[in-house]
Amino acid sequence: MWLPLHTVCLRSQTTCRRSFTAALLKLSRHGDNANVSHFSHSARLSAQTCKALLYRRHGDPSQIVKLEEVDLPLIGAKDVLVKMLAAPINPSDINMIQGTYAILPDLPAVGGNEGVAQVIEVGSQVNSLKKGDWVIPKDAGLGTWRTEAVLAEDSVISLPNDIPLLSAATLGVNPCTALRMLSDFEDLKPGDTVIQNAANSGVGQAAIQIAAARGINTINVVRDRPEFTQLSDRLKAMGATHVIKEETLRRPEIKELFKTCPKPKLALNGVGGKSATELLRHLQVGGSMVTYGGMAKQPVTVPVSALIFKDVKVRGFWVTQWKRDHSNDERALRAMLDELCSLIRQGKLMAPACTEVGFRDYSKSLDTAMQPFTSAKQVLIM
Amino acid sequence: MWLPLHTVCLRSQTTCRRSFTAALLKLSRHGDNANVSHFSHSARLSAQTCKALLYRRHGDPSQIVKLEEVDLPLIGAKDVLVKMLAAPINPSDINMIQGTYAILPDLPAVGGNEGVAQVIEVGSQVNSLKKGDWVIPKDAGLGTWRTEAVLAEDSVISLPNDIPLLSAATLGVNPCTALRMLSDFEDLKPGDTVIQNAANSGVGQAAIQIAAARGINTINVVRDRPEFTQLSDRLKAMGATHVIKEETLRRPEIKELFKTCPKPKLALNGVGGKSATELLRHLQVGGSMVTYGGMAKQPVTVPVSALIFKDVKVRGFWVTQWKRDHSNDERALRAMLDELCSLIRQGKLMAPACTEVGFRDYSKSLDTAMQPFTSAKQVLIM
Repeated sequence: MWLPLHTVCLRSQTTCRRSFTAALLKLSRHGDNANVSHFSHSARLSAQTCKALLYRRHGDPSQIVKLEEVDLPLIGAKDVLVKMLAAPINPSDINMIQGTYAILPDLPAVGGNEGVAQVIEVGSQVNSLKKGDWVIPKDAGLGTWRTEAVLAEDSVISLPNDIPLLSAATLGVNPCTALRMLSDFEDLKPGDTVIQNAANSGVGQAAIQIAAARGINTINVVRDRPEFTQLSDRLKAMGATHVIKEETLRRPEIKELFKTCPKPKLALNGVGGKSATELLRHLQVGGSMVTYGGMAKQPVTVPVSALIFKDVKVRGFWVTQWKRDHSNDERALRAMLDELCSLIRQGKLMAPACTEVGFRDYSKSLDTAMQPFTSAKQVLIM
Repeated sequence: MWLPLHTVCLRSQTTCRRSFTAALLKLSRHGDNANVSHFSHSARLSAQTCKALLYRRHGDPSQIVKLEEVDLPLIGAKDVLVKMLAAPINPSDINMIQGTYAILPDLPAVGGNEGVAQVIEVGSQVNSLKKGDWVIPKDAGLGTWRTEAVLAEDSVISLPNDIPLLSAATLGVNPCTALRMLSDFEDLKPGDTVIQNAANSGVGQAAIQIAAARGINTINVVRDRPEFTQLSDRLKAMGATHVIKEETLRRPEIKELFKTCPKPKLALNGVGGKSATELLRHLQVGGSMVTYGGMAKQPVTVPVSALIFKDVKVRGFWVTQWKRDHSNDERALRAMLDELCSLIRQGKLMAPACTEVGFRDYSKSLDTAMQPFTSAKQVLIM
């Protein structure tokens, strides 16, 4: 569970809904036992229906998401038919199904906003993709929890297929969020410091690794837990400079830590509430805190003195908006993915701990993804 | 009363104290009845002592600020002797005496950080100033509540003397704060909207007028009070587009208001607490809120969704820091003062409502300045 959104503020409702699944999804008129042979007017060689995890109303994901058979539309000249390979269950997917996320698809909708697919057929005017290519969605809302999909060529972007499948499946949201936050808010140089809470989240783990690859120190704050030492060791193995518990932020010994690295220029906040205020307290004068999540379901509280006399900058980041803002500049997205894939190939960026789950075992996966302290990301394998 | 600062965060303690009064202030060794004739070794024609409002410890201003006679140092080659003409009592002056402000002078100290003085004598190597010039401090900490002062040439900047005395005395803090906040955070164009609370404050009144001169709409939020209509009329006469009570921000009728002007790109926050959160709620997507004061003594609370999905930018502004950041670029300060003086000459920027008080009546003035809902700024006339 992620953002407690009841009031939703959007650039434009139209924009936010523009790429949703309605156009790509036509419910089977034949039900689960449909005989699909009457689709033979299609020139397609492969399946004319697919299996999809569908929800028809908002609510508890494990109650309302059902595996259904849905029609696939014909491939247009600028479309591709893809086979989904793997798709994670992200907190934002859960919130979208619950109806509490900032963007909501028209219902019924297929769940999932991220994942990697393989092109199995291309339309006659498709130039940028060919059969066999791996692709990921350019934007949220494609409905990735399905076996196949017909997608507009320009709704996906190709990915090299020499990276691990789980890395590809989880590349488009968390690592992109981490990379942008580390790049776009402060001019970080080797030796600088970043502090973050939720350091064990998907974004947190990516931030540790990308920062380490750039020579940037990270102070990583996690909630206390029985296996703290084990977690700390794991994050340090990824490149974390320091791993501390929330309560350490409020203790005098935190000062010791700043003897080994400068005060942070940048804070990454995935929690909100007191945790965010504590991050702010340790920022350098003039530094930035960027909020990308609100797991504590509490607002960010900023002392007036920090704003006026310490000149802290309090910002937010949403990778979906970044992608939309750059939708006319594919080079920006391509450059970011290339940088991430290069780190993956060099062994400097691993996928977060994942649990691979067969597509048909989605229900238990949804439950697991909603538990607190989940130590692994659930990834559906199609 | 302004900022509830207990923990103070500074760029550098050294920097913050660098311009303070210690070097300029030597307590009279002769007490209030000192015979000053033994200072005849000075070539100076004018007074060798001056009267100053001094405090020797932090505490309640009306209890601890005393009118004392203090020695004036000799004028160095790069110094000027000035006669203070008028100096306001600002909230930050009060907080400095209370010991709760972000920068604190060495004690004993002369109160006051703003005001206009006239040059009455110049050192042999002074180039930028001549006798008769009006000057204002370049930085906080000069100790302006005094009759005369010997100041380094480069600690002051000249001002045209064809503007009203009260405008000159109150130019360096509030109008500069308003102008910078309207200039440096969002690219505002004629027809755009700014929303602000504390609209009746010195900064608020300056913001109304500068915005109006630039063709920018202002939505001005004030606390409810018996003479609301009178206040509203006064602010509208200055150029305010709308004047509303705090509670109106939370009511549906606020929507009516946005039929006549676009949603604000910029919010100016002098209050904090709920008031600040309400301003945020009405910002355009991607807009900025700039905090310059915290009258409510409550932090700024920002919903996580506003940061992530509405991309609001939460910032602070402190004119003292701006001046220090630009201390090597006098053109920037000069350009700002020229712009403000031009508006004053055109009748587009009036001083806030002021009560002129004789220098010796300072004690009552300090009391008055500390009352809530003060409708006029106390200005000491020397």
